[in-house]
Amino acid sequence: MTGHPALAIDIGGTKLAAAIVHPDGRIAAHDRTATPSPPPERPKGGGESSPGGVGGRPPTMNRPPERPEGAEAIWSALVALVDKVFADAGAPSLAGVGVGCGGPMTWPAAEVSPINIPAWRGFPLRERLRARYPGLPVRVHNDAVCVAIGEHWRGAGQGHDNVLGMVVSTGVGGGLILGGHLIDGGTGNAGHIGHVIVDPDGPPCGCGGRGCLEAVARGPGLAAWAREQGWRGDEDDPTGADLAEDARAGHPVAAAAMRRAGRALGLAIASATHLCDLDVVTVGGGVSQAGDLLFTPLTETFNTHARMDFAQRVRIVPTALGQTSGLVGAAALVFRASRYWGPSDKQ
Amino acid sequence: MTGHPALAIDIGGTKLAAAIVHPDGRIAAHDRTATPSPPPERPKGGGESSPGGVGGRPPTMNRPPERPEGAEAIWSALVALVDKVFADAGAPSLAGVGVGCGGPMTWPAAEVSPINIPAWRGFPLRERLRARYPGLPVRVHNDAVCVAIGEHWRGAGQGHDNVLGMVVSTGVGGGLILGGHLIDGGTGNAGHIGHVIVDPDGPPCGCGGRGCLEAVARGPGLAAWAREQGWRGDEDDPTGADLAEDARAGHPVAAAAMRRAGRALGLAIASATHLCDLDVVTVGGGVSQAGDLLFTPLTETFNTHARMDFAQRVRIVPTALGQTSGLVGAAALVFRASRYWGPSDKQ
Repeated sequence: MTGHPALAIDIGGTKLAAAIVHPDGRIAAHDRTATPSPPPERPKGGGESSPGGVGGRPPTMNRPPERPEGAEAIWSALVALVDKVFADAGAPSLAGVGVGCGGPMTWPAAEVSPINIPAWRGFPLRERLRARYPGLPVRVHNDAVCVAIGEHWRGAGQGHDNVLGMVVSTGVGGGLILGGHLIDGGTGNAGHIGHVIVDPDGPPCGCGGRGCLEAVARGPGLAAWAREQGWRGDEDDPTGADLAEDARAGHPVAAAAMRRAGRALGLAIASATHLCDLDVVTVGGGVSQAGDLLFTPLTETFNTHARMDFAQRVRIVPTALGQTSGLVGAAALVFRASRYWGPSDKQ
Repeated sequence: MTGHPALAIDIGGTKLAAAIVHPDGRIAAHDRTATPSPPPERPKGGGESSPGGVGGRPPTMNRPPERPEGAEAIWSALVALVDKVFADAGAPSLAGVGVGCGGPMTWPAAEVSPINIPAWRGFPLRERLRARYPGLPVRVHNDAVCVAIGEHWRGAGQGHDNVLGMVVSTGVGGGLILGGHLIDGGTGNAGHIGHVIVDPDGPPCGCGGRGCLEAVARGPGLAAWAREQGWRGDEDDPTGADLAEDARAGHPVAAAAMRRAGRALGLAIASATHLCDLDVVTVGGGVSQAGDLLFTPLTETFNTHARMDFAQRVRIVPTALGQTSGLVGAAALVFRASRYWGPSDKQ
């Protein structure tokens, strides 16, 4: 396959990644950097003689609440990363720019407010990128949706028309491909498998609801549950990845946490399979690194609840592309727009 | 709009319905009849001198297990109904034949085995209709899917691209329209909202699973639950419709059963909305006749669990077309194939 490559970008709360991706999905150049942390909060009340005092701005100029310094610091880090990757690839002509970014966002306009990037609230990501790459298509979607697209186009869902791609990590996200096409829903928010309800009276969820898959199975939720049971009680901030590692090493509480996650995932996947008649479900993200410790209880629960023939045929598999799946999926927004980019707004 | 009308058929466990439908969805002629009951079981063991004895067939001719007499009795009743409706409409030239039938079925071949029609097991419905209407498109889909199509095309979901159409009756079924197109899934089984799990440790479901929406909210399930609480304990077989009526009349147990159903429906609709980013959910079927007694707890539960902006915007409304929605939807399989009929198998 010939043609210009795409610039692909993946924006998350802990890292920024960029790649130059060929039209066949191969990655030509690739790099990542930490997402800059927000600057410290200014002290509130007292200690400042003028209401707009920091930075010497006149008091009559109101400071917008989204702290633009922090927003611009992240943008600058992104630009530096992208320029480096572009140079590494030999400064090719580009077919377009595809981006996966943490949600929520307006869509397809992509004013982004990623939960894990507090400095970006209504940040005009698509507009900024369009100004920087005039004349090129610039397409932004949810980061978990891009992982699902990547796995459908070139990964574990390849060759199937009805695929749910999941990411089980700090949050639980996903994307839905049905009839061979990405499902956007009314506002670009389809694929929120993390908010399928698995325990109606369960723990409160960051979305404001209760008993969502994400509330039970996200890494920090599992770690918090395990700490209540005494796991690593002497440490400050053990993670979901620590938990997966301990589970593999045989720690009984860590293993129980993985069973808890597996059961919740099995329930949500059974519900999604019944509603959408899926062919394949791909499961990735840090928590999925626990392997069989997660997949065995997941499959057992799925098999208990999904008894009909059409549901029994679904295959539940680990993702195949690893950490690059989001970048590959972002590139597919450019290269496979007829499948993955629904809006009429093609630039 | 001009053009030939379609023959529309709706096949359920208690009634067969048929209509002649104009290309704009108006019904020209319409009738229904009871679905013939299966003949009594032949006695097993003893009382028969020859293994193939009934009907004088030679013992070497095995009787297929699906009892073809019963199957043919239903087919004959359907043919008589269809011929009457066709004559009532003045024997018009037809654009095609659209059918909604209880599931499961192979699809799109439509060898049907409706749960509530035991005499039809692998009955070749599409093949039979094709033989009777040579040269015309004959398209068969799940009956609840046809209700969803009808409501999307001409009912309460009209003008919206992302609609879940539900039927809450003897079972709980549905159909899913996303991006303006019917979602079939891998085997034509998408839309099984009745098997979204609302209570993981809940009652066993007819599907073999546990805690499905259908297990909790179907009419007979609600009636059984209410009888356990003392409702109409002296009657043989009170129905979900009786329950809805008693709830409206102020019977506290009947009202509690409707709250139970409403809560289960609210949970399943919240999960489906999060996964599919729906615009509208239409709710029909006998149980939905309870009106606010069902919709109020439904909406309360939905609002507790669906907190994100994109989910809060969904509208949950009663169906608009009443008992004809399945016929209108079946006709749309003929008239609006580009939206509602996915298979390449267009005849």
